[in-house]
Amino acid sequence: MNSASRPSGRRPDQMRNIRFTRNYTRYAEGSVLVEFGDTRVVCTATVSDQVPKFIKGKTQGWVTAEYGMLPRSTSERTIREAARGKQGGRTLEIQRLIGRSLRSAVNLKGIPGYAVTVDCDVIQADGGTRTASISGGFVALHEAVTQLANSHCIPFIPVRNFVAAVSVGIVNNIPVLDLDYEEDCQAHTDMNIVMNDADAFIEVQGTAEQQAFSRDEFASMLDLASLGVREVIRQQKLCLDK
Amino acid sequence: MNSASRPSGRRPDQMRNIRFTRNYTRYAEGSVLVEFGDTRVVCTATVSDQVPKFIKGKTQGWVTAEYGMLPRSTSERTIREAARGKQGGRTLEIQRLIGRSLRSAVNLKGIPGYAVTVDCDVIQADGGTRTASISGGFVALHEAVTQLANSHCIPFIPVRNFVAAVSVGIVNNIPVLDLDYEEDCQAHTDMNIVMNDADAFIEVQGTAEQQAFSRDEFASMLDLASLGVREVIRQQKLCLDK
Amino acid sequence: MNSASRPSGRRPDQMRNIRFTRNYTRYAEGSVLVEFGDTRVVCTATVSDQVPKFIKGKTQGWVTAEYGMLPRSTSERTIREAARGKQGGRTLEIQRLIGRSLRSAVNLKGIPGYAVTVDCDVIQADGGTRTASISGGFVALHEAVTQLANSHCIPFIPVRNFVAAVSVGIVNNIPVLDLDYEEDCQAHTDMNIVMNDADAFIEVQGTAEQQAFSRDEFASMLDLASLGVREVIRQQKLCLDK
Amino acid sequence: MNSASRPSGRRPDQMRNIRFTRNYTRYAEGSVLVEFGDTRVVCTATVSDQVPKFIKGKTQGWVTAEYGMLPRSTSERTIREAARGKQGGRTLEIQRLIGRSLRSAVNLKGIPGYAVTVDCDVIQADGGTRTASISGGFVALHEAVTQLANSHCIPFIPVRNFVAAVSVGIVNNIPVLDLDYEEDCQAHTDMNIVMNDADAFIEVQGTAEQQAFSRDEFASMLDLASLGVREVIRQQKLCLDK
Amino acid sequence: MNSASRPSGRRPDQMRNIRFTRNYTRYAEGSVLVEFGDTRVVCTATVSDQVPKFIKGKTQGWVTAEYGMLPRSTSERTIREAARGKQGGRTLEIQRLIGRSLRSAVNLKGIPGYAVTVDCDVIQADGGTRTASISGGFVALHEAVTQLANSHCIPFIPVRNFVAAVSVGIVNNIPVLDLDYEEDCQAHTDMNIVMNDADAFIEVQGTAEQQAFSRDEFASMLDLASLGVREVIRQQKLCLDK
Amino acid sequence: MNSASRPSGRRPDQMRNIRFTRNYTRYAEGSVLVEFGDTRVVCTATVSDQVPKFIKGKTQGWVTAEYGMLPRSTSERTIREAARGKQGGRTLEIQRLIGRSLRSAVNLKGIPGYAVTVDCDVIQADGGTRTASISGGFVALHEAVTQLANSHCIPFIPVRNFVAAVSVGIVNNIPVLDLDYEEDCQAHTDMNIVMNDADAFIEVQGTAEQQAFSRDEFASMLDLASLGVREVIRQQKLCLDK
Repeated sequence: MNSASRPSGRRPDQMRNIRFTRNYTRYAEGSVLVEFGDTRVVCTATVSDQVPKFIKGKTQGWVTAEYGMLPRSTSERTIREAARGKQGGRTLEIQRLIGRSLRSAVNLKGIPGYAVTVDCDVIQADGGTRTASISGGFVALHEAVTQLANSHCIPFIPVRNFVAAVSVGIVNNIPVLDLDYEEDCQAHTDMNIVMNDADAFIEVQGTAEQQAFSRDEFASMLDLASLGVREVIRQQKLCLDK
Repeated sequence: MNSASRPSGRRPDQMRNIRFTRNYTRYAEGSVLVEFGDTRVVCTATVSDQVPKFIKGKTQGWVTAEYGMLPRSTSERTIREAARGKQGGRTLEIQRLIGRSLRSAVNLKGIPGYAVTVDCDVIQADGGTRTASISGGFVALHEAVTQLANSHCIPFIPVRNFVAAVSVGIVNNIPVLDLDYEEDCQAHTDMNIVMNDADAFIEVQGTAEQQAFSRDEFASMLDLASLGVREVIRQQKLCLDK
Repeated sequence: MNSASRPSGRRPDQMRNIRFTRNYTRYAEGSVLVEFGDTRVVCTATVSDQVPKFIKGKTQGWVTAEYGMLPRSTSERTIREAARGKQGGRTLEIQRLIGRSLRSAVNLKGIPGYAVTVDCDVIQADGGTRTASISGGFVALHEAVTQLANSHCIPFIPVRNFVAAVSVGIVNNIPVLDLDYEEDCQAHTDMNIVMNDADAFIEVQGTAEQQAFSRDEFASMLDLASLGVREVIRQQKLCLDK
Repeated sequence: MNSASRPSGRRPDQMRNIRFTRNYTRYAEGSVLVEFGDTRVVCTATVSDQVPKFIKGKTQGWVTAEYGMLPRSTSERTIREAARGKQGGRTLEIQRLIGRSLRSAVNLKGIPGYAVTVDCDVIQADGGTRTASISGGFVALHEAVTQLANSHCIPFIPVRNFVAAVSVGIVNNIPVLDLDYEEDCQAHTDMNIVMNDADAFIEVQGTAEQQAFSRDEFASMLDLASLGVREVIRQQKLCLDK
Repeated sequence: MNSASRPSGRRPDQMRNIRFTRNYTRYAEGSVLVEFGDTRVVCTATVSDQVPKFIKGKTQGWVTAEYGMLPRSTSERTIREAARGKQGGRTLEIQRLIGRSLRSAVNLKGIPGYAVTVDCDVIQADGGTRTASISGGFVALHEAVTQLANSHCIPFIPVRNFVAAVSVGIVNNIPVLDLDYEEDCQAHTDMNIVMNDADAFIEVQGTAEQQAFSRDEFASMLDLASLGVREVIRQQKLCLDK
Repeated sequence: MNSASRPSGRRPDQMRNIRFTRNYTRYAEGSVLVEFGDTRVVCTATVSDQVPKFIKGKTQGWVTAEYGMLPRSTSERTIREAARGKQGGRTLEIQRLIGRSLRSAVNLKGIPGYAVTVDCDVIQADGGTRTASISGGFVALHEAVTQLANSHCIPFIPVRNFVAAVSVGIVNNIPVLDLDYEEDCQAHTDMNIVMNDADAFIEVQGTAEQQAFSRDEFASMLDLASLGVREVIRQQKLCLDK
């Protein structure tokens, strides 16, 4: 296992540079630009007092997410979903994943009557857009519910725990952390893992692209994920403490 | 850990009755009714020589899947997706999962110029429709490619390995195998696992519904999944040997 | 006029085997599998207290129908309407026909505040899916409103009369009853007739495919239809009496 | 049976004033304004050398129809189907009926490589828009194929027979011909009948709105239809002979 | 600058024949056929007491417009937007323009609780359909609000001023008024101008098709527009005074 | 006329700070972030050798544009058009305007066989997003066609002239240049003007929101526009010369 195996020259357990830039846009209740290397995603959190129907009458709130890519965030231009007239399966799958992950981060009973929509829009994609979206979306969500608490709309900040995500995979038979696009294309297995700051699992989505993976490989990937998530959460905390 | 914890009275590691009925309909190249307890799914495999665009010119074939539920396969009537004018995110997510899982089962270079569409339509849903669909879809796909080989369209049966799926989860803090709908609603964690007959992983999709799960719980669920998949594959083989 | 003229060897005035299987699925208020020979349709009736807008405030209920075909219910795979994003003209035409026919069977004032949706999903198609759907849909509807009466939601069973449908046509210049798919393709005229148990007409839809039909041919087809509907209603009664 | 029974004062067997105005618009290969009393429909026939896929390679042509209503052609404004984003079931059903009816009027082998689209757009609706559309659409189609023959694109005019349509129904227990909107609302039975100039049937679509109709009533309606169609065809011939 | 430059032989500052025919259809609250030469548009105004959401609770009404073309109103058949499943960008752009223009003509506070929908449907298109629609739509709107006042639903006729529109352009380097389709195709610049009877501007939409236009050319076109609008308003007044 | 009339304290003829940042993303053939004050738009130009159908066989290329807003680019969250399933009328109108404007900037015969798509995605909106999009889109387009020439795909840079756009309007009865969102809401007239570096007009779209504007006001707005466009083009040139 040597670093020569990664196109970027990174060690197998090395994340790309991660950066969270708060207050990236001026209108949203929470707004952050998250960068995982060359992957750049704008995450905004919008607070509304219009809760979805299935929540009405319950003493709780809701958190949901939407995901999109700018047409030329990718190396080949991707057709604009608004022009196609529908969101594709991949988009729906990703935004469902982001939504579930972020809901696990807050106590929904702590935001009664409020709905928070986290929009994750990819400006530039170089692998890992969904894990960057979850990690950045958490920061935007944290900002938004903190603002709700600060303005006394709710009694306290209802964050249960920090939530972050990383991708892991098997490239050239070696388990690696935080795949960029080039690695993603070569990977035999690609897995997205969402964890919290108690080192517990929230979502696991793994796919063997060409060959199935063993229980041992699985364990190695989980080890890497745990390492990576810890690093992302460290950055989230630094950013939110500023 | 006692059987009292499951509403059905099953042991934590006990599958429901599994049944594969071949030749369930008369037109398809492969056709099977799969039952996991009260969950019933019609799986048909259709062979076509119209391959998708991205395959054209390559010496390989393709396998894809579609999934649907009859409106009253569920306890409350579900709106018909054809009437709504689009397939929902859940449907797209499931049919993408089935498609990826089944593609791992065949050597696509072994069916050059052919596209196989596996339709999984749920007649009655009692939890585990996606794992039943993958398990039954494999049988329909196996029938279809066997027929292609038997009619000398391709030189040999291009099945790489058997593929089956089960759900596992944590209900009342106990890891259990093959959740029915009642357990699904109570589960803290719900995971769908697709494996092959070499005990290796093809797809893992786990979601912590209310509380995150630990590495130990994860391991227990993987153990149960391995057990369950082995049983499903045993039934697939019995059925295909008839 | 001899039986040699029909591919199936049936006499011109002979129906295929008709079978109604009650309680085919477990959740619906009415549920039946109807078979006209190899044509198999699952009919379920769902009772709801959400009536359509145009009924609100009136002391009556409503009955509506939806129709669909599994993609591989046909000899060639039919594209899934949910994937296409809309129901085709044929589907809409058929479900409007089923809905009108079934509304004629019940006294809508007898189910005030209730809407019954009858779903007819074709598992296997061999001609006559719409007449099978009406005939089976009636049984499911009967079960559903009987259950409403039995549970004292309404004072009595509001069925005005039995309703059934058959197809008739002219094949090789001979009027025949209950066409299968092979005959359907050869027919010069194809007619679907819905009648009640008072031998009166509810719906008539006839189409001359290649050559117009005469008043005499029309009369012969009506005679056959009357005969066929009587037989279907006899089976409906047997099934509901069980 | 007296004329007092009809709101318009017409006798039961009396059509409204029928008028065909040729060359109603200037671009179409065939163009006619058809009026059945206050019902006014613009029918245009467009000839194209782009035949539908299922015709390609066959030595025949095709005829198809589309139908629409101006939003305020009706007493209450009807939502614009282009704005709703889809054609409703009624529209699709009607345009399928018009298309089948008009295809029966021409020898499709006589227009090889040509597709004729007949557009029927309702300017004002007072009952009978579909029968007016068929009757007017025939004239536009006749003009278009005649022009094809006159310009030597095809060797002769491929019209097999004249085709026209009328509505009949049972209003206040009396069979009547050519219902206007007021009668349509009161009718117990409403039937659209398409016939040719050999007094033979092409399409029959009858619906019992509230009470089923008997075989005798059926016969009376067919008698009226035959009478009405003869009158419409007389007018079509007068118009085309001009 | 001589009349030889226009295909129609008109002088550069000469409108086509303009004609408004009131009461063109019988159901609408306002209804007019407007003709600018061979361009013919049916304009109807429908009054409703269902105002859009953003108006609810305000003491004002609303005016909106919809636009459509019959498929064969053009020299080549245009695909029916209802069949395509959506209104195109050109249609939406035009109906937004018509709506804004007509809203400027009435005092919206003078029709509290009412929504007027003006439908403009093009029967035949020979250039200038949007300016004809605005000019005819104004007449239909005037009729509708006058009827509201006459029936004492509102205290007085809330028309602020007359509104009309013309197209101007530069064809063969000469500024011309009211372009027909042939000129439209050749024009270097094409401009639609909406003005009121106080000679003031409501909407200006100008496009340089192939070469940009100068400030002087701009001025000449505005002069022509002013002239043309005055003529259209004179005709509107004549028509409404009848 | 004093500067007190503008909320921002700007003089009536003063633009906001304008900034063009090249190479904003890494994949596109042209990529720029354009800022007009707080309005920020990412413009990318994508070169493709797939030209639209209506260009095929002609010795020319094509330029088209698409426009979108991030959901929270606005002070209230705007629904995501991809989720709504269609682009709204405003979006279509804007992207048609951008496309026409940019096509005027290049000699389409100079890019035979190439299609350039300019995507303008609004990150933050504070008025003037369409004029910023045109101005920034021009820079991205210039970069893309320059790259085509530099790589010898085309013989020379086919830019006919520089193209830029500004908004002008009448706020508090004073003509002003480059309205921000606050002014936009108060403006009686709002006009978007696209011009080239020869001081000639390409597009003019003016709307009187509440009261019509006079010929004199029109002239003042055109003077301001000319001034503003000159400034934007100066910045475009500075940016492209870097």
